[in-house]
Amino acid sequence: MNILITGGSGFLGARLARTLLERGSLALAGAPAQPITRITLADKADPPADLRADARVQFAGGDLLQQATSGALPAAGTQLVFHLAAAVSGECEADFDLGMRSNFAATHALLEACRGLGTQPVVVFASSLAVFGKQPGRPLPEPITDDTLPTPQSSYGIQKFIGEQLVADYARKGFIRGRSARLMTVSVRPGRPNGAASGFFSGMVREPLAGVRAQVPVAASTPVALASPARTIEGLVRAAEASGADWGPLTALNLPSLRTTVGDMAAALEAVGGREAAALLDWTPDPAIERLVSTWPGNIRWERARALGLDADASFEQIVRDYVRENPQAVTVSWRA
Amino acid sequence: MNILITGGSGFLGARLARTLLERGSLALAGAPAQPITRITLADKADPPADLRADARVQFAGGDLLQQATSGALPAAGTQLVFHLAAAVSGECEADFDLGMRSNFAATHALLEACRGLGTQPVVVFASSLAVFGKQPGRPLPEPITDDTLPTPQSSYGIQKFIGEQLVADYARKGFIRGRSARLMTVSVRPGRPNGAASGFFSGMVREPLAGVRAQVPVAASTPVALASPARTIEGLVRAAEASGADWGPLTALNLPSLRTTVGDMAAALEAVGGREAAALLDWTPDPAIERLVSTWPGNIRWERARALGLDADASFEQIVRDYVRENPQAVTVSWRA
Repeated sequence: MNILITGGSGFLGARLARTLLERGSLALAGAPAQPITRITLADKADPPADLRADARVQFAGGDLLQQATSGALPAAGTQLVFHLAAAVSGECEADFDLGMRSNFAATHALLEACRGLGTQPVVVFASSLAVFGKQPGRPLPEPITDDTLPTPQSSYGIQKFIGEQLVADYARKGFIRGRSARLMTVSVRPGRPNGAASGFFSGMVREPLAGVRAQVPVAASTPVALASPARTIEGLVRAAEASGADWGPLTALNLPSLRTTVGDMAAALEAVGGREAAALLDWTPDPAIERLVSTWPGNIRWERARALGLDADASFEQIVRDYVRENPQAVTVSWRA
Repeated sequence: MNILITGGSGFLGARLARTLLERGSLALAGAPAQPITRITLADKADPPADLRADARVQFAGGDLLQQATSGALPAAGTQLVFHLAAAVSGECEADFDLGMRSNFAATHALLEACRGLGTQPVVVFASSLAVFGKQPGRPLPEPITDDTLPTPQSSYGIQKFIGEQLVADYARKGFIRGRSARLMTVSVRPGRPNGAASGFFSGMVREPLAGVRAQVPVAASTPVALASPARTIEGLVRAAEASGADWGPLTALNLPSLRTTVGDMAAALEAVGGREAAALLDWTPDPAIERLVSTWPGNIRWERARALGLDADASFEQIVRDYVRENPQAVTVSWRA
């Protein structure tokens, strides 16, 4: 099987590639499992060395909009596309044109290129809980379900929601087999901070565990619908493997989320790293981040994902312990025990 | 005041222009009324002669995508844009690329051009009840409200729904003042049939009243959410005049609709035109039209429109009588009385 991952050098893309390479095969859209023979990672940035070293991995460096418009991607024979590439929420809010190009135009061009293959590839589109947003002067629906009307309050959310609509119609027309899955806030992400407004949800754990101070730009009471990297990748793979009948409607589904708060996340950090780690948090509000994050829901249901056998993480403390186990080099020695 | 109407030579565009010219002034977005000094009609087709004869009317003939991309439209000084131009539902289902160009790309280009004005013009976007659609194997929500999740089952519906999202974000960013209003099925439209799957909702009245046979391609029990041309224009004008606070959320609102059935429409035809008129109906199913129309809802609520003072037509029989009065030349003499 020949797979394309856009945003393949990013944290989620690389982790997805590793997971697929370890599994070695995939049962595409309910068909019998086939060996994975090729994974193409499309990204502006180079992929990590371990992925470059795998003979099954190919790197397609460059601008996705150009690659898709020229028909260079997806390559002929591509059976499955994970479309993860996107400008992140903070960037899109600061630079409207960047978001429209990277998220709106590139997604449309990629779908056109998939249609051009003429082989109905499976397209797993990584949408986001950022499609939901609290409108000024109105409460958020409680809880959010798979059937709640999204009212995005950010350009990123609007662009993701438009992507969902395009995927649905390209699938309805038979150009692709479409699977739009809304990712929850992913934490703990290793590595460097990115421009996402949600970046602090990882930084507030990652940085203190490395002995570095971190800003918490929102109130402790802020609710958050969160998933670990492992559960997130599990959701993307399940989306690729689900048959059309099991997947159900062409509308996007919510991936599972742990319902917690920023305060409880800090408590989990303290449980794992001790008071010393928690003391490295600076609780300094950032109005720009607060404005975006406060419009996102914390109470989200995932009935369709549950029917696919997916479930949420058990606790944020467990997520933090998994992070420490998986990223020993990024954790101050005294807290690794 | 300087107004642009895209699709300005079409039936609704021309009727809107006549209504505005008769009124002579408009209270834009809650501001004091200003005289209407210029209406630009953008369309591929020439406008009707009566509009060409009005010194306040200008015609911008050509392709909207090109006109908007080049910045030719809207002209500097345009304070209000009614964006009605669209490829219709049947066309978009038959020719996917046409719909994506005329509805998706042209709407985006027009919003970019409005943003380029730098003056926050009011943009009234004519969306459609076709954003709603019955998903295979699932019932439609009953009733449909302003907060129901649209699940479009046609490319036209998807493109209109994407237009709503773009209008909302361009408005949220302060590039425009956005007003997305979902038009109901408009009947009775005078003139020639167009490529809309909903065209028969007018043809089944208009043709028999002119002594011509007409096909009814769906079952008599088919529900329909319908509005007269007069109520539809009233909704568009109200959208332009509503203040931002009165309009409320940036999501689209449903315009009022009369809840009826195709069978009751035929009965209204008979009540006005007699058995002779009703006998001109051929009840011959058309699977392609039935497939589109049967996914549209008949039971739609319009709480936001009601709060703006809008209401539905009283009865379809009254709509038919209004049509006869307004279009005497299109009605066989014996039925004009």
